[in-house]
Amino acid sequence: MGEFNLIRRHFQRASGGPSVVLGIGDDCALLLPRPGHQLAVSSDMLVEGRHFFADVDPQVLGHKALAVNLSDLAAMGARPLGFTLALALPRADDHWLGAFSDGLLALADAHACPLVGGDTTRGPLNICVTVFGEIAPGRALRRDAARAGDDLWLSGRTGEARLALERLRGAGWALAAPGDDALCRQRLERPEPRVALGLALTELTSAEGRAPAAIDLSDGLAGDLGHILRASGVGAEIDLGALPVAPALQSLADAERLECLLRGGDDYELLFAAPAAARDAIAQAAAACSTSVQRIGHVTTGTGLRLRWPDGRAQDLDARSYDHFG
Amino acid sequence: MGEFNLIRRHFQRASGGPSVVLGIGDDCALLLPRPGHQLAVSSDMLVEGRHFFADVDPQVLGHKALAVNLSDLAAMGARPLGFTLALALPRADDHWLGAFSDGLLALADAHACPLVGGDTTRGPLNICVTVFGEIAPGRALRRDAARAGDDLWLSGRTGEARLALERLRGAGWALAAPGDDALCRQRLERPEPRVALGLALTELTSAEGRAPAAIDLSDGLAGDLGHILRASGVGAEIDLGALPVAPALQSLADAERLECLLRGGDDYELLFAAPAAARDAIAQAAAACSTSVQRIGHVTTGTGLRLRWPDGRAQDLDARSYDHFG
Repeated sequence: MGEFNLIRRHFQRASGGPSVVLGIGDDCALLLPRPGHQLAVSSDMLVEGRHFFADVDPQVLGHKALAVNLSDLAAMGARPLGFTLALALPRADDHWLGAFSDGLLALADAHACPLVGGDTTRGPLNICVTVFGEIAPGRALRRDAARAGDDLWLSGRTGEARLALERLRGAGWALAAPGDDALCRQRLERPEPRVALGLALTELTSAEGRAPAAIDLSDGLAGDLGHILRASGVGAEIDLGALPVAPALQSLADAERLECLLRGGDDYELLFAAPAAARDAIAQAAAACSTSVQRIGHVTTGTGLRLRWPDGRAQDLDARSYDHFG
Repeated sequence: MGEFNLIRRHFQRASGGPSVVLGIGDDCALLLPRPGHQLAVSSDMLVEGRHFFADVDPQVLGHKALAVNLSDLAAMGARPLGFTLALALPRADDHWLGAFSDGLLALADAHACPLVGGDTTRGPLNICVTVFGEIAPGRALRRDAARAGDDLWLSGRTGEARLALERLRGAGWALAAPGDDALCRQRLERPEPRVALGLALTELTSAEGRAPAAIDLSDGLAGDLGHILRASGVGAEIDLGALPVAPALQSLADAERLECLLRGGDDYELLFAAPAAARDAIAQAAAACSTSVQRIGHVTTGTGLRLRWPDGRAQDLDARSYDHFG
């Protein structure tokens, strides 16, 4: 199978989308954002051995490659318009490509985010997705918008993806129930980007015209929160007792559970900061998109990150993020 | 040096650009195209051993990674707005990164096309650039816009990059003069994307509202012309005597010279089709952006590609393009 047949068979769809003027097959794709809207852009590169295991199910990989990018749009509050895929493959394996594109395009369909172009080449397996979204001016959920006194909110819950990863790596971390392996692996392999919640949060601009601050959790709650704190010049306190704990995490040793909750990685939940006046509106917005949200702490003056234990004790936390070259 | 220092030191600039609302450092970059304009998007992935030699000068590689993408914008007639860079690196080598970003950002500056975001990870060397441009509705230089009777035009000339590549590979292809090695290597390593010419061509919309058809030459004149012919449902005839021949190609055997001219690859010139009525306007537009252009043949009815020799003889040409999985 040649390169052009490969593209035609697995990636080219007749359908475009309302914002796609020209899709796959020319020197560029052409998109038309709604009048006056800004374009949000994000790019993520997934590499074998670092972001996924060599024997990963290709359908899972297709889903995840787009999910992590849609999660960036969600964290900005942007509406998906489309994406490009650049793919380096060691060989053209029809079965692998069929499953990969199934996973990729099913998620694309679910979010009305069509594949509009890209590149294929031979090389060590590498997947680079660049996603495009639109957002009204002034509405983006920027990392630098947190203010002392804001509530800190978390969608869903953290830690199950990390537990799945540790067990795949052979760590003897204990499960609460036999079925938890499958549940945790689902969280690791098929994250559901919180696009609807991100969009809803952009509607909650405060009286002073400030949209909430947000980030998506890819490297762990504490480290990703650190990005908001540094960008906004503030500190934060996380209330450990308020963090939702998945049933699967109940049988872990305390240190392991804390690691999952605070430094898990691959959660793809939204962490956001908003004034207390927005509490009811946030609860309603989250309910409207069937996403659970929880207040897990608050933003403080200063620059540190603290963990408040249920017994009232406070502990300083490292708010640095995962570093590929650290 | 960690990932975040690496980004700060080598890739983050204070400057944005008039269309950049938010650059590096958040979940997404935010761009603002001019009101009513479409967004043109293209993505190319460069892999060691296929697109460049392992020992390539990193400054050259930085230039070329962006140049091949800007060339796609040029072939669509889009004005550059910005680009993202996703980079997998085996290690964080400060010297290598400094030279790579120098080459990359110098070309970005020359085209007012700032780096707005991206991703860095550890892995086999892989460079994925996605570039964004803007274009007025109906003005894009699409591959499907060629019509029988149109002139075929070529910017610059083809073949020198291929000659350089063959000599780097150790083929004994003869040079016309000792200095030609450096000249040809310059063409291979530092292509100058024809952005200004592409923009100028969008102004030449015909009385019937048809913009010229265009493609950029990455895989060789004949194969890339084939993309226009198939998309437009037409044929073409190339007049061999009209093809510009670089001095460096004069001493090649006939078959080698023909290979360079028609199947060279890495030319990054524009090939375009436009009605005869546009000849003067095209000559003026090309002169205004200091780019030489040449009429090299014409579009025909039917679907084949023919080469017309100076003695009047006609020869069928294969119009298939290079295939990474062929």
